[in-house]
Amino acid sequence: MADNKIPYKIYLTEDEMPTSWYNLRADMKNKPAPLLNPGTLQPLKAEELAPIFCEELVAQELDETTPYIEIPAEIRDFYKMYRPSPLVRAYCLEEKLQTPAKIYYKFEGNNTSGSHKLNSAIAQAYYAKKQGLKGVTTETGAGQWGTALSMACSYFGLDCKVFMVKVSYEQKPFRREVMRTYGASVVPSPSETTEVGRKILAEHPGTTGSLGCAISEAVEVAVKNPGYRYVLGSVLNQVLLHQSVIGLETKIALDKYGIKPDMIIGCAGGGSNLGGLIAPFMGEKLRGEADYRIIAVEPASCPSFTRGTFAYDFCDTGMICPLAKMYTLGSSFIPSPNHAGGLRFHGMSTTLSQLYHDGFMEATSVEQTSVFEAAETFARVEGILPAPESSHAIRVAIDEALKCKETGEEKTIVFGLTGTGYFDLVAYQKYNDGEMSDQIPTDEDIAASVAKLPKVE
Amino acid sequence: MADNKIPYKIYLTEDEMPTSWYNLRADMKNKPAPLLNPGTLQPLKAEELAPIFCEELVAQELDETTPYIEIPAEIRDFYKMYRPSPLVRAYCLEEKLQTPAKIYYKFEGNNTSGSHKLNSAIAQAYYAKKQGLKGVTTETGAGQWGTALSMACSYFGLDCKVFMVKVSYEQKPFRREVMRTYGASVVPSPSETTEVGRKILAEHPGTTGSLGCAISEAVEVAVKNPGYRYVLGSVLNQVLLHQSVIGLETKIALDKYGIKPDMIIGCAGGGSNLGGLIAPFMGEKLRGEADYRIIAVEPASCPSFTRGTFAYDFCDTGMICPLAKMYTLGSSFIPSPNHAGGLRFHGMSTTLSQLYHDGFMEATSVEQTSVFEAAETFARVEGILPAPESSHAIRVAIDEALKCKETGEEKTIVFGLTGTGYFDLVAYQKYNDGEMSDQIPTDEDIAASVAKLPKVE
Repeated sequence: MADNKIPYKIYLTEDEMPTSWYNLRADMKNKPAPLLNPGTLQPLKAEELAPIFCEELVAQELDETTPYIEIPAEIRDFYKMYRPSPLVRAYCLEEKLQTPAKIYYKFEGNNTSGSHKLNSAIAQAYYAKKQGLKGVTTETGAGQWGTALSMACSYFGLDCKVFMVKVSYEQKPFRREVMRTYGASVVPSPSETTEVGRKILAEHPGTTGSLGCAISEAVEVAVKNPGYRYVLGSVLNQVLLHQSVIGLETKIALDKYGIKPDMIIGCAGGGSNLGGLIAPFMGEKLRGEADYRIIAVEPASCPSFTRGTFAYDFCDTGMICPLAKMYTLGSSFIPSPNHAGGLRFHGMSTTLSQLYHDGFMEATSVEQTSVFEAAETFARVEGILPAPESSHAIRVAIDEALKCKETGEEKTIVFGLTGTGYFDLVAYQKYNDGEMSDQIPTDEDIAASVAKLPKVE
Repeated sequence: MADNKIPYKIYLTEDEMPTSWYNLRADMKNKPAPLLNPGTLQPLKAEELAPIFCEELVAQELDETTPYIEIPAEIRDFYKMYRPSPLVRAYCLEEKLQTPAKIYYKFEGNNTSGSHKLNSAIAQAYYAKKQGLKGVTTETGAGQWGTALSMACSYFGLDCKVFMVKVSYEQKPFRREVMRTYGASVVPSPSETTEVGRKILAEHPGTTGSLGCAISEAVEVAVKNPGYRYVLGSVLNQVLLHQSVIGLETKIALDKYGIKPDMIIGCAGGGSNLGGLIAPFMGEKLRGEADYRIIAVEPASCPSFTRGTFAYDFCDTGMICPLAKMYTLGSSFIPSPNHAGGLRFHGMSTTLSQLYHDGFMEATSVEQTSVFEAAETFARVEGILPAPESSHAIRVAIDEALKCKETGEEKTIVFGLTGTGYFDLVAYQKYNDGEMSDQIPTDEDIAASVAKLPKVE
């Protein structure tokens, strides 16, 4: 069934792998709005960020002008252990759908963290090591980011303290054990080990925790302990920069075979995967060199792009982090307990928010039952059990391919398959048992949390 | 740190992938002893096997003379979805060990079944489909084989009935859900759905099942239902034939860079992985064209090569399957509940048994605490969380590399990394918590079960 010229999987050789990350902001005319100090409401300066983040990462966070930043050799060596990730031609899915569309996916799940998160984790660990730090702290919800960071810290011999939302710590013991195997200390949050944790426990005995609380604990430990800094796995510009390796590899692989995509589809939570995947393509679009449809897919239960407001908001529910101008549902918004833990953030990357606001990309939302239906179809023909997050992109890729079937158009679709679902089988079980439902926030739900946005202007 | 010439991962192009399997028996002067009919004690004929197994697979099982058997195009297409698997140069492990040895591993875990089992599952499903069957039945313990077969059946649209040992069904719900997602029906064994199951339940109410019982149920369903056959994931010659794709790819990759291994190491349960990995190398050795050390690694808790007897025995505890001449601990031997479910078979492939008996390979056994220590070391530097089974090979590869450190020899070590440990985290948790112990059978334990071997000669 295969097209003679295009293999099932396009791998780059080590020589062909990117040697620099691409900083999309350098090509944006309207730069993303700066982060604000939550106290003064003034743009944050490097020196204000330095007690929390590593120096080099602060520089990357604030750099809006350098288009290419070299990937240090140590990070390139680590990348070679699990990269290049394959760009796969979905021949079997095309045949199953009987579509004239040509479907490709960039698969980031072939590493033990199970997702693309490792691309930024290893970079952040490297800069922490280079700065002579002892270790880093972070929070994790479902556990993909915590796992990736544990692996990265283990490689560089850094201490790694992960605050894991208590309900996940108890319900996802396997993720926790992967982190422990990589030598991380994993603490259920809220904990008695921090001031903020003790305060929350006193006020809400028996709470099962939240990402906002875990962030607060991780930041407190980083700030109070000499030789520690806090690291974050999404939303930030530095993370999108590191994740650009996904898009750069994709573009090199496509160029190698003279393939020009019509559309690029990615799931969107905080934006780390989508921002990385689309980076070089969006760059061409911004520079007027090419045009692509770029589609962000979010869960209907947490629709920040499609139903949120473009405004300054807190990044965490605890309201201790900087303010960011982004599409947001409000930091007090609580999404229904859907099964794509990585897509439950109330806001969105400032860079992607600005690009969406300026009309350079589209966004759509999908319901989780239709997402799992797509996941199952994909798994059965392509042989990979996808993560619930990634399956949002699969859903829309299938829908677009089915449109091509109706119109007869041979469009080329590229989507990001961010990871595998091996630790998400409780969700698959619910779907297999017919017990999964869709829960979509009402307009009133969203209005209530948006009404609490901070007043900035 | 990397050797300039050898990349971290050697991938073959699609053009370089093997187009035939290699049938090691064709090059053996002493052929493996034939399977015997358990009733007549006479060698089994094709017509006796046909009600149980697919026709083409019976032919492959009995073929001792054809050295190369073409891989059908449909199977080659499926292989292209997850193969070639990478041959990885373990630069980071070498550096960690400070060894002059050069270590390579063939990694079979980059597919959703998580192991090499898919290589044979897809072949067996293909021949079942080609024969016009409706479906297949099988048993599964830990679940790797059941998962692989579910994926293969889903691809060819075959019905798949898996009898899963009840204790695993209840304790490993995630494996079960992967199978269900691929459309398999998974039945806890013993069950009320078969005669043998009802009999066992009547005799042993509340039993948590065994592999032997699950085999009996699967065979009964296959024989009683028109359009169904039984399939098996290890031990058989046909399985070693299909798994030869592992070794063939390894050899092509090594040859591409002019690398000649000094030793090849693989874990051994029923022999499917080891037999596949070593096939072309053993072929050269049998033909006198090259020499290699070939090392089978088994758990100290189930040491069929190192402490078993070379004799005819039943392949199942229920004693309904053919008799095979092999290294065995006796079909009534019950290994301690170690954490490498895939290495708990009392016997061994007849082909590998004959080769070991004739001095063409070595065998060694290792204890599980030292296996998990090696697994952790490997995971932390190579970024892959290995399956407990695979970690037996890692243990011995590390030991051999450390010997090279002492002697200064730059030996080239190749080992098989059969799969990932994502569904084995209960075992890792025990190790992380310091609660894992070694349980080694006494000479009396082994003598007691060996005393019950059937009298054949």
